[in-house]
Amino acid sequence: MSRRLFAELLGTFWLVFGGCGSAVLAAGFPDLGIGFLGVALAFGLTVLTMVYAVGGISGGHFNPAVSVGLAVAGRLPAKDLVPYVIAQLVGAVIASALLFVVASGKVDFSLANGFAANGYGEHSPGGYSMGAGLVAEIVLTFMFVMIILGATASHAPAGFAGIAIGLALTLTNLVAIPVTNASINPARSTGPALFVGGWALQQLWLFWVAPIVGAALAGIAHKSLFGDD
Amino acid sequence: MSRRLFAELLGTFWLVFGGCGSAVLAAGFPDLGIGFLGVALAFGLTVLTMVYAVGGISGGHFNPAVSVGLAVAGRLPAKDLVPYVIAQLVGAVIASALLFVVASGKVDFSLANGFAANGYGEHSPGGYSMGAGLVAEIVLTFMFVMIILGATASHAPAGFAGIAIGLALTLTNLVAIPVTNASINPARSTGPALFVGGWALQQLWLFWVAPIVGAALAGIAHKSLFGDD
Amino acid sequence: MSRRLFAELLGTFWLVFGGCGSAVLAAGFPDLGIGFLGVALAFGLTVLTMVYAVGGISGGHFNPAVSVGLAVAGRLPAKDLVPYVIAQLVGAVIASALLFVVASGKVDFSLANGFAANGYGEHSPGGYSMGAGLVAEIVLTFMFVMIILGATASHAPAGFAGIAIGLALTLTNLVAIPVTNASINPARSTGPALFVGGWALQQLWLFWVAPIVGAALAGIAHKSLFGDD
Amino acid sequence: MSRRLFAELLGTFWLVFGGCGSAVLAAGFPDLGIGFLGVALAFGLTVLTMVYAVGGISGGHFNPAVSVGLAVAGRLPAKDLVPYVIAQLVGAVIASALLFVVASGKVDFSLANGFAANGYGEHSPGGYSMGAGLVAEIVLTFMFVMIILGATASHAPAGFAGIAIGLALTLTNLVAIPVTNASINPARSTGPALFVGGWALQQLWLFWVAPIVGAALAGIAHKSLFGDD
Repeated sequence: MSRRLFAELLGTFWLVFGGCGSAVLAAGFPDLGIGFLGVALAFGLTVLTMVYAVGGISGGHFNPAVSVGLAVAGRLPAKDLVPYVIAQLVGAVIASALLFVVASGKVDFSLANGFAANGYGEHSPGGYSMGAGLVAEIVLTFMFVMIILGATASHAPAGFAGIAIGLALTLTNLVAIPVTNASINPARSTGPALFVGGWALQQLWLFWVAPIVGAALAGIAHKSLFGDD
Repeated sequence: MSRRLFAELLGTFWLVFGGCGSAVLAAGFPDLGIGFLGVALAFGLTVLTMVYAVGGISGGHFNPAVSVGLAVAGRLPAKDLVPYVIAQLVGAVIASALLFVVASGKVDFSLANGFAANGYGEHSPGGYSMGAGLVAEIVLTFMFVMIILGATASHAPAGFAGIAIGLALTLTNLVAIPVTNASINPARSTGPALFVGGWALQQLWLFWVAPIVGAALAGIAHKSLFGDD
Repeated sequence: MSRRLFAELLGTFWLVFGGCGSAVLAAGFPDLGIGFLGVALAFGLTVLTMVYAVGGISGGHFNPAVSVGLAVAGRLPAKDLVPYVIAQLVGAVIASALLFVVASGKVDFSLANGFAANGYGEHSPGGYSMGAGLVAEIVLTFMFVMIILGATASHAPAGFAGIAIGLALTLTNLVAIPVTNASINPARSTGPALFVGGWALQQLWLFWVAPIVGAALAGIAHKSLFGDD
Repeated sequence: MSRRLFAELLGTFWLVFGGCGSAVLAAGFPDLGIGFLGVALAFGLTVLTMVYAVGGISGGHFNPAVSVGLAVAGRLPAKDLVPYVIAQLVGAVIASALLFVVASGKVDFSLANGFAANGYGEHSPGGYSMGAGLVAEIVLTFMFVMIILGATASHAPAGFAGIAIGLALTLTNLVAIPVTNASINPARSTGPALFVGGWALQQLWLFWVAPIVGAALAGIAHKSLFGDD
């Protein structure tokens, strides 16, 4: 079991350090910055790379919502759910702490710039409402988990799941960054929120509720629509 | 059969929600926007991810023109064509409706900005004529379906078709977004047009005719040039 | 034989229509344009997609320099070289003609903007000298063909060559677009040059000589360094 | 042995010529430049392409830190370490020399613009401190080597390692270019530093120490956490 939890911790660490790191350090760099496209790619590549690196050990969730969705679909034993989520949260918090160390090595760094935390309403990058954020996060996490369940099913070609799942996360980010800064993952939201505090903690509930609702619906829908493959 | 239709509905839903969603929400974001490159990537990734997720169930068309092309090439039974197209249209309309819910969560949202509908002439992003739009859509859909037929033929390495097909859609979009906003897919065009109305519905015929002509030509050409592999 | 030549014609058609098309239509679009990065990706995806679509038929060269390199390496029978190159040139010319039809559907279109032709000196996008262009094209085509020979050798995992080769072309373009607009392929250079005329035809010699020299050196070097695998 | 050393030389040549070449020539091109995102993609694609081209010969390190990490993990015989590192350095220096030839073919070229050398403090692209640079390079190289060890372990699907490893380098660059211009690889840092001289040589120690420390820690951690797979 501890091998699997280390794999989840490490993968979620990488998701937050690589994804939020690219957002905090590189997205808005003058003239040469990577923008939302680069951040979306970075988040996807954290998952793509770690599915190949440790997916064979833990299944490669790196995301409490995904673990819930797989448990609902009967692909993760219920007793593993809480340990998986704890390992994921530990990885996310360590990543945020190390990212804080790097980012604060620049004179004008300020947590007031958001530190890649997720938000809605006045804290949405594009000023989208709470309702828009809820719908976007539910729909996108639903589809993300549908892709995970489908790409790892017996009818899918073996080995390609890491590419499909990683790039599915990129795609969700291409849509959702303007709306909520793109969570899809409660652990990814919790890490930065602990450092930003205030509004980020007050809005954190949405980034637990919406992804988990979307993931659980996917767990149910996949079974009903496509059977137990 | 219903499993296959759900797969087509879901895949086309994702194509429109992810592709048009990235265009409406993220393409023109000030400074950090994903631009045409990000939108082209998003459309391609919707197909790449869903081919791995449900391609083993339905074949992974998500596009009425593709279904026509495969029927012409003898790869889809003719009796499946109409149900496939209906499922694809239902997915596209649901996606447009949910995208409308998210996008209208921003105060200054307006359908007058196009809602990612396809167009030509004064409604072409770059001001390209109807003739240019017709040629571009026919040629690009022809090649898209040639790639689908080739990458799923017996001489192609198994498993890689999803990558080739998804990225082929990205490529068609890299070329065609300035010309017609890139259809290649009548269902993708119909969803937003129903919400925009007016000019988008008046110009919708081109985005049914040209992709279907291109796809049908590919179905014929592939058989003639490369035989029945 | 004709199946193989149709495959080469079609692949080179796609390389020029998709690659040069993205450059002419989408690279410099105001605010949302795909830039050199999008063009580099488009060129690479033309090859990636067609290697999976028809590579099993013809080998997937789509490039006279590649055919020369493979002939030197003993992977293509010498008698096939001339028919392959002719098929590639026919594909490139048809692609340029169709691209002209689409591009001229915009009122302010002008061949004087370059039509994606390759050049050096005052016709280099960044003002690089003829010597810089020669070195860049020789080195990059050398490496491109080394990757083709290596990724299709017996020690490489089966099926992945299309990904490696397509993205290798993207990489050569990421380096060479500012220098020569990135040829690496005499057929890709010849198509647009026939339409632009004048300087483009006068400078065309370099885009035959340098890629073929680089490719032939790769054919020799691969055999000497790594043996006949 | 010489086949393996040629493979390492060639791969590291490509990493520096392609990666630093894209940075020097194409990153800051007016309006159409590829930015940090294009450079990050270029570095990753050098590794992805060469793992498929020659990875089956040498293992595909192209990086002294990776060779150290694999030696610590027991995957590279200790006696091969010094020859591998020398071959990598030779490749990096040849690449920098050829890149100098190309880049200096532009009238306003100047080594004072950095020539893609790595740096910290006032030579960090974003003005990040030495401490930030140390932490970033250690963490990112640690994760890069963890992914290499995981993706080539027996539990990972065969053939996909080149994709995971190449795109992992892209990801490290998406995070680290603003901080240190992204080394992760002492050979990549040494090539340009020899041409820039002065500050680049004075700061070069960090880009040997930090990547090697990170890689060695990964060699130890992978064994302890996940066992000898």
